[in-house]
Amino acid sequence: MAIEGKQEAARERRIRLGMVGGGSGAFIGAVHRMAARLDDRFDLISGALSSTPEKSAASGRELGLDPARTYGSYKDMAIREARLKDGIEAVSIVTPNHVHFEAAREFLKRGIHVICDKPLTSNLADAKKLKKLADESDALFILTHNYTGYPMVRQAREMIANGDLGKLRVVNVEYAQDWLTEAAEQTGAKQAVWRTDPAQSGAGGSTGDIGTHAYNLASFVTGLTLESLAADLDSFVPGRRLDDNAHVMLRFAEGAKGMLWCSQVAPGNENGLKLRVYGEKGGLEWSQENPNLLWYTPFGEPKRLITRNGAGAGAAAARVSRIPGGHPEGYLEAFATIYSEAALAINAKKNGTKLDKAVIYPTVDDGVKGVAFVEACVASSKKNGAWVKL
Amino acid sequence: MAIEGKQEAARERRIRLGMVGGGSGAFIGAVHRMAARLDDRFDLISGALSSTPEKSAASGRELGLDPARTYGSYKDMAIREARLKDGIEAVSIVTPNHVHFEAAREFLKRGIHVICDKPLTSNLADAKKLKKLADESDALFILTHNYTGYPMVRQAREMIANGDLGKLRVVNVEYAQDWLTEAAEQTGAKQAVWRTDPAQSGAGGSTGDIGTHAYNLASFVTGLTLESLAADLDSFVPGRRLDDNAHVMLRFAEGAKGMLWCSQVAPGNENGLKLRVYGEKGGLEWSQENPNLLWYTPFGEPKRLITRNGAGAGAAAARVSRIPGGHPEGYLEAFATIYSEAALAINAKKNGTKLDKAVIYPTVDDGVKGVAFVEACVASSKKNGAWVKL
Amino acid sequence: MAIEGKQEAARERRIRLGMVGGGSGAFIGAVHRMAARLDDRFDLISGALSSTPEKSAASGRELGLDPARTYGSYKDMAIREARLKDGIEAVSIVTPNHVHFEAAREFLKRGIHVICDKPLTSNLADAKKLKKLADESDALFILTHNYTGYPMVRQAREMIANGDLGKLRVVNVEYAQDWLTEAAEQTGAKQAVWRTDPAQSGAGGSTGDIGTHAYNLASFVTGLTLESLAADLDSFVPGRRLDDNAHVMLRFAEGAKGMLWCSQVAPGNENGLKLRVYGEKGGLEWSQENPNLLWYTPFGEPKRLITRNGAGAGAAAARVSRIPGGHPEGYLEAFATIYSEAALAINAKKNGTKLDKAVIYPTVDDGVKGVAFVEACVASSKKNGAWVKL
Amino acid sequence: MAIEGKQEAARERRIRLGMVGGGSGAFIGAVHRMAARLDDRFDLISGALSSTPEKSAASGRELGLDPARTYGSYKDMAIREARLKDGIEAVSIVTPNHVHFEAAREFLKRGIHVICDKPLTSNLADAKKLKKLADESDALFILTHNYTGYPMVRQAREMIANGDLGKLRVVNVEYAQDWLTEAAEQTGAKQAVWRTDPAQSGAGGSTGDIGTHAYNLASFVTGLTLESLAADLDSFVPGRRLDDNAHVMLRFAEGAKGMLWCSQVAPGNENGLKLRVYGEKGGLEWSQENPNLLWYTPFGEPKRLITRNGAGAGAAAARVSRIPGGHPEGYLEAFATIYSEAALAINAKKNGTKLDKAVIYPTVDDGVKGVAFVEACVASSKKNGAWVKL
Repeated sequence: MAIEGKQEAARERRIRLGMVGGGSGAFIGAVHRMAARLDDRFDLISGALSSTPEKSAASGRELGLDPARTYGSYKDMAIREARLKDGIEAVSIVTPNHVHFEAAREFLKRGIHVICDKPLTSNLADAKKLKKLADESDALFILTHNYTGYPMVRQAREMIANGDLGKLRVVNVEYAQDWLTEAAEQTGAKQAVWRTDPAQSGAGGSTGDIGTHAYNLASFVTGLTLESLAADLDSFVPGRRLDDNAHVMLRFAEGAKGMLWCSQVAPGNENGLKLRVYGEKGGLEWSQENPNLLWYTPFGEPKRLITRNGAGAGAAAARVSRIPGGHPEGYLEAFATIYSEAALAINAKKNGTKLDKAVIYPTVDDGVKGVAFVEACVASSKKNGAWVKL
Repeated sequence: MAIEGKQEAARERRIRLGMVGGGSGAFIGAVHRMAARLDDRFDLISGALSSTPEKSAASGRELGLDPARTYGSYKDMAIREARLKDGIEAVSIVTPNHVHFEAAREFLKRGIHVICDKPLTSNLADAKKLKKLADESDALFILTHNYTGYPMVRQAREMIANGDLGKLRVVNVEYAQDWLTEAAEQTGAKQAVWRTDPAQSGAGGSTGDIGTHAYNLASFVTGLTLESLAADLDSFVPGRRLDDNAHVMLRFAEGAKGMLWCSQVAPGNENGLKLRVYGEKGGLEWSQENPNLLWYTPFGEPKRLITRNGAGAGAAAARVSRIPGGHPEGYLEAFATIYSEAALAINAKKNGTKLDKAVIYPTVDDGVKGVAFVEACVASSKKNGAWVKL
Repeated sequence: MAIEGKQEAARERRIRLGMVGGGSGAFIGAVHRMAARLDDRFDLISGALSSTPEKSAASGRELGLDPARTYGSYKDMAIREARLKDGIEAVSIVTPNHVHFEAAREFLKRGIHVICDKPLTSNLADAKKLKKLADESDALFILTHNYTGYPMVRQAREMIANGDLGKLRVVNVEYAQDWLTEAAEQTGAKQAVWRTDPAQSGAGGSTGDIGTHAYNLASFVTGLTLESLAADLDSFVPGRRLDDNAHVMLRFAEGAKGMLWCSQVAPGNENGLKLRVYGEKGGLEWSQENPNLLWYTPFGEPKRLITRNGAGAGAAAARVSRIPGGHPEGYLEAFATIYSEAALAINAKKNGTKLDKAVIYPTVDDGVKGVAFVEACVASSKKNGAWVKL
Repeated sequence: MAIEGKQEAARERRIRLGMVGGGSGAFIGAVHRMAARLDDRFDLISGALSSTPEKSAASGRELGLDPARTYGSYKDMAIREARLKDGIEAVSIVTPNHVHFEAAREFLKRGIHVICDKPLTSNLADAKKLKKLADESDALFILTHNYTGYPMVRQAREMIANGDLGKLRVVNVEYAQDWLTEAAEQTGAKQAVWRTDPAQSGAGGSTGDIGTHAYNLASFVTGLTLESLAADLDSFVPGRRLDDNAHVMLRFAEGAKGMLWCSQVAPGNENGLKLRVYGEKGGLEWSQENPNLLWYTPFGEPKRLITRNGAGAGAAAARVSRIPGGHPEGYLEAFATIYSEAALAINAKKNGTKLDKAVIYPTVDDGVKGVAFVEACVASSKKNGAWVKL
């Protein structure tokens, strides 16, 4: 082992957490639970884990939850927990997209902080209503655009904000997967079924599932505002009801141009989220599958490889790193950072203290932008790729 | 050293070659000369190397040409060489784009084979006229889309033709450089000056200089026909008269979709030509900067890295490889392959023998398509990115 | 998000855990705590976290431990916890090496399971005594050779056991770092001070700190038995008292040969643990800094890249993976796997059930081998690199 | 195409070249011919290409040589060519190792420059005699340690000479191949047969064939003097008469330590020559299979990737580069650089001019060192890996 490590934050009482969705067979629920646990700032004590009371109870038992705190519906859970003296302070919503809005509403209106999976909702109308509810609520709303938790993503954002790249010109982002290359939804695979079902996912397939992540990442790192887009969407797999591939051209308000490609039918790509940004003075390249590295290419100088907690990495990355450079942190650590940022925000709120400016988490506004992005992609594609404003 | 090598082809007499352009300070002329020399099938014996007789003579002396065979203009050269008993049999035209048409015409009409740099001409009207001339001439016309000479590009083409990827869905190609990140043309850098000058280059900047290579590569490897495109072109550097960045969406006649990005303002990219192709059954990825490798990703199987002359490489790649796997061949070797293919075709023509089907070289038709691509990009961009048919 | 995920194991009561060492400023203590937490099988409830009662108490408060369960010495802790009805069931020992033996003894003799950092002890005599104690105790002894928890390390081990490489010939392993390139110990850096102090570390510097990991990894993956070694050790930094670089040649009982290089003075290497194994039928290559990949090179076939939870990965890797391929798992996850394996073993012991054969964790025997390796390296180097038997 | 290119050197008359060995089926002969041709400084006009007059004549015809200048033996060739007014000025010797000495002698003593493949001879006694002959001759002796021709190898050498790494500590070099994983020599493969035959190759197998390259590369780049070595050689393939794998520890006179691994039985390695050098201030890493890159890792700064003709590359690399960065040069170009350096030296000699100090080529001294290295490896291995002085 190598260098002086980073200590856990000084202890505060753990935040009492509930979960909606995430029962047996779900993938993302388990991810949220590991993420909540890693930095030891949350206690999962309650859940409405499945769509039926029986399954929910069974999943609760598996997770060691008190049966009295396992509910058959998120509504019951919200009502009951809000009344308990030691009720949950925050809830993670990890259901398919179409449930996000109504579930979040029940908790927000009772002052329970919401940590919600993305995309925010299955349509823009719901997204806007949810934003209104969140803005009016005392509770916080945290959207788990988890890729913003990667230290080298924070590093890239800090460098661009510092002007290291000069005025930005080109932003290319892509998110390629291959798991829907064949018609997995026709074999009943749970993840494939709901993600290709407009009723559960909304108007976007790959655009909603992963395109929103790509768009969010580009926005988060560059700080640019997407002004309009032109999209060409396809459903290459016969019978598929939502897009499984999208090519999108981007125009940013600040004058930069870009491209976004998302695909779930690109064999050989597991989770290929990549961002490349070029400005007048240099470039940056980051890839999610090897996330501890960031290429920095100042024009006219040798390419530099900045590593997490290595030489050249700045304060923003160091703040969210746990272990020394060369000891890779991964997807769960980045996800856990979103939870830790949420905990810091929740505790500041509770204690009436000022939140450290360095704390960053995606909000309901990012969620609205993401759903607007999906609907703009769909609209543009229907209009033969015409430019659509956001 | 490792395995049994590849012998040079059985000797035929070297082909007598002339060159138009390529005098002192030119880059691509030297490349053509090395490419012509490597496989020992040509003898450079004549030239009209520069735009003035004095410079041409000086350049000829530097290259050791017979002063009697060094000309002040390509027209004089064509007239005189055509009359000589041992006159040139072929000519390489390596001038800026706007000279290609008229120079090629002089040689074609005298039955001298033309090996011409790309893009074919500086506008589509000239390109079509040149095609007519080439079609009517007994002489061959070879366009040096040199990237088609890379063994692993041939390998990719062969695999797709064999159906290894199934029906194609997505074709993403890009060509990124950074040498025009700043206004090099304003400092008088020769290469930058003519390449950013519409009078010498034509309507396209990066689209003409490198976008045509990207488009040609995608077409060559996939065998698909580009049906229409939607383009967003920019000149990011103040004062630049031609595009230095282009995002282009592609629709192929066979149903595949794609995108093409070319840029000369992407810091950190030296000569980043990359192709990715995905079909129903698998994918392929190739990058020019490490050209001896080809990723092959059959769906549902581990990724495979095929190497030049290594296991898994087929006949098309082996045919144009010179040395064992692990001994990298590069840009000049690929370029030399275009010359060797040209020599095989010229000799077959001369000898009245049937040309081996395996011999491949880009033709005037590819040239016309390239110029049409440039003009379509410019037209689409002027129409706010509307789809333009090719 | 992509494919069907992996559910947490069905709940059993969490194992009550204590910790010796790991107070403020320690690195590896925090790593153990995160690792213990990730899979939710342990509750840290007690500690003797520092060498003085005051510091221990302060560190306990920071971690939210009950002050009544925070002790000034590991001996007090062992005595007291052994008497409590809800006393700790297991203890993590994360002190400098020279403390391992005595601390472990106190817990082992009271039937408390020990999870101990490596190297096992600071000298071979202690290591052998500790092995005797562990063998005689009812308690389990788990050594945190954490790199054996990486899924692709398990994959490599499984493939070799399956005979995919045929009889092994060459085993090259290396572990390169750069954090001791300068005399960090002279600036008081805590990690550097004790790791370069023979009294705390033992006879080996880089050989003990990281060479043991490299040796363990090679042994774990190949299943080979190291028969003898020849070593050349150096302390390149003036004033350094232990080796900071070692070149070691290896001979295995089964006929394979190898080399091991460990260095803490190799600029540009953060945590460069790499293993390459070659047999009659193929090879494997793995690198810790990008741990989700494994190169498999069957002789005469294209190279294959196997990814964690991707195509080609087998049962041993899948068993210890948490999330889909392309979502990188890192150092903490691998470390957590050691803890989860320990939990499975502890629970099986407690419940009197048969432990699943797939469960693997490093034991006191591996620890003895590691210390023997260090002492053999030192002995060989003193004898001018003569071969020393293990 | 990108930036201003490099012009060919101003013309001098081509040097008249002959070749010994390199007939049909030989690999390295064709490589030498391409290398001699690329930069246009040699004319191949004569040959004794095979061991029998008939084969030699046939090979000469294939290459288009004048039959009168094709000889049945190198001795006839030397005698005859030395008498001709336009006889060869230089000869390339590309036979199996055991012929080098006697062939070279015939030409050296007649004042014909010798360009000889490595290793210099099949035993040290011959090597020393050859050195004496070369020293006494007016003719030059150039040994084709071709890897020293790579621009980034020159770059590494220049940086170390400049002190960019400070005092050197660790030098690790390896050369791994897999083409002898099975008993290819028993199937009659020509390259395998002679390379595994002590009578033709000398005492070393992989050590002679590729270990000498690795040793030469390490010496060339670092400028260090190898003082002693300890080696463990194996012939893993049953029936093989020479080593096919060697692990070697290195001690340099200047205090640095190192390891050399060469293997021809490492599946997945095609031509894996890699060098890593670490000093007090930084490190360098270079790999032959992607030779246009050089990693430079100054301690405490981000890793930098220097590219051929890119930012950060210095004069030594630029001098031997032909084309812009990003346009890969490969093995043949590096080999051609040795020929071009030889031509510069030969012409300087002929013209009585002072040779530019920047011109570098391997000499008979490097050849003697290489053969001494092989014999030291064999001797050490026979003495159970004892240290042997060089």
